Amino acid sequence: MRDDIDVLVHEVGPRDGLQSIDTLFSTQAKLDWIRAEAAAGVPQIQVGSFVRPDLLPQMADSAEVVKEAITIPGLTVSVLVPNLKGAQNGIAAGAHQLGVVMSVSEAHNRSNINRSVDESIESFGQIVEYRNEVDPDRKVTISGGLATSFGCTISGPVPVADVMRRAEQLLERGADRLSVADTVGFANPKQVRDLFEELFRTVGNDVAVGAHFHDTRGLGLANAFAAVEAGVRELDGCLGGLGGCPYAPGASGNVVTEDMVFMLEAMGLRTGVDLDKLMETREIMVRHLKGEPTHGTYLQAGPPLGFIPATAA
Amino acid sequence: MRDDIDVLVHEVGPRDGLQSIDTLFSTQAKLDWIRAEAAAGVPQIQVGSFVRPDLLPQMADSAEVVKEAITIPGLTVSVLVPNLKGAQNGIAAGAHQLGVVMSVSEAHNRSNINRSVDESIESFGQIVEYRNEVDPDRKVTISGGLATSFGCTISGPVPVADVMRRAEQLLERGADRLSVADTVGFANPKQVRDLFEELFRTVGNDVAVGAHFHDTRGLGLANAFAAVEAGVRELDGCLGGLGGCPYAPGASGNVVTEDMVFMLEAMGLRTGVDLDKLMETREIMVRHLKGEPTHGTYLQAGPPLGFIPATAA
Repeated sequence: MRDDIDVLVHEVGPRDGLQSIDTLFSTQAKLDWIRAEAAAGVPQIQVGSFVRPDLLPQMADSAEVVKEAITIPGLTVSVLVPNLKGAQNGIAAGAHQLGVVMSVSEAHNRSNINRSVDESIESFGQIVEYRNEVDPDRKVTISGGLATSFGCTISGPVPVADVMRRAEQLLERGADRLSVADTVGFANPKQVRDLFEELFRTVGNDVAVGAHFHDTRGLGLANAFAAVEAGVRELDGCLGGLGGCPYAPGASGNVVTEDMVFMLEAMGLRTGVDLDKLMETREIMVRHLKGEPTHGTYLQAGPPLGFIPATAA
Repeated sequence: MRDDIDVLVHEVGPRDGLQSIDTLFSTQAKLDWIRAEAAAGVPQIQVGSFVRPDLLPQMADSAEVVKEAITIPGLTVSVLVPNLKGAQNGIAAGAHQLGVVMSVSEAHNRSNINRSVDESIESFGQIVEYRNEVDPDRKVTISGGLATSFGCTISGPVPVADVMRRAEQLLERGADRLSVADTVGFANPKQVRDLFEELFRTVGNDVAVGAHFHDTRGLGLANAFAAVEAGVRELDGCLGGLGGCPYAPGASGNVVTEDMVFMLEAMGLRTGVDLDKLMETREIMVRHLKGEPTHGTYLQAGPPLGFIPATAA
């Protein structure tokens, strides 16, 4: 990670946010958003997903978006890929990082992608092998994502031991980093701290570990704080909390990027992000929406009097 | 504190919530709310404020409310009192705990109650002396409240050393407990943890310390978590986040009681509260509102699958 930031904020709105709403963003609209957010200092953005276009029309232009986004200086461009075919397309487009996600919950993985978790782990290994062939210097990094790590809407509680086992398997198969997700908004901050402490004990402190939280039950930022306390240095967020949650109508989806940046900067942790420019980016995004709700408190409240962001200090 | 709870949830809605909204609750409506919430297991409720009725008509029936509320078995009835006259009335009505609040910020205290902080400390001492005279067994407890402990809308940052000094002065003058408030929603969780750790170092671990957070910038629950991590065992909340924040239209006011209870119970901390009954209480409260917004996520999202509250475990 760069020396001048303490926590890497990974914006996932152009993927996770857009895939959950009805409005179709044009390629140009996506790029307006991505360019503005990169200019605000957000160091990494998940710009698309290499899935079948008939299944997710919102993501059909991901290759085009990647090709433009990688010309933005300093920006790490990540994409989601569900399988080897997606990985091939993502690498061909020029993505810097591939996110490959599976659920720790067997029931959730079956329901979502009709595979056992073991099969997903095998598929992950094939993606790494393919990357190693076409990119022997491993410039394209591969993130192993563990969904439902804090609970599952189908099977309920998920044992921490299962998360540890899958994390070790991903690393054995060549994951460059891990991403641990509270996919359905079940986590509480004690659980988050305990799980990440256990994870660092299990895989060592040198592994890059990201966290992905949803704000379904209002605990997104509390969980982000707990993750940082446990040593996590990469956090996903979604500008304006775009996307909502299919399990809880009206509820916020991903943690709101701008609120999280405010929290981190107020805590003295440098994100490299300029909050004013981030709020301008939010306006750019909102202009393209057609009635979809956004979330967040910083928008209404603004900074506290005398607030000095860590990045500016 | 009772042996069967780990964190005492102090509902302040009938005071802090109601005094910020237009709807006038009848005495009966307040008591319906208070009785239901006590029956849900909330151990302490701030039921009113002994201020001049012409200044705050919503609180004009506080003596009546107290007189009924103290007949509810097991409930600790607290009230806010601004001065000696209010304390006399509060004790006469039968309140179990008096909350006396001053701002640590000199500018905020002047603006709010037209006194220096030193004068407020002196007034606090007089209230304690009066209590000691009329209640030599000190059955009525007095809470020393420190508003703007995390920042001030007039003067900005508030030095931690000022909070420590005022806390020590309150204890020297006989405070039975302390209540530290982020009155204007400026706090971040690192600041909260650091301040409470410093406070316990300063006044010792035996002093009962409560925390009062606003959710103005979405950090209310993160701050509550940080406070608990630092050793705080008493937290204020407002059912449905009633009341909002005059500084940020549309923003939530106090931390939402039901969301906080969910967080604590999910973390394995017993509050003694039955969440289902608490949500029924919320409905009772909402029925009396006339268009005022409420807040909270637990209402929409419900419990995670397989959730077992600590109190029920």
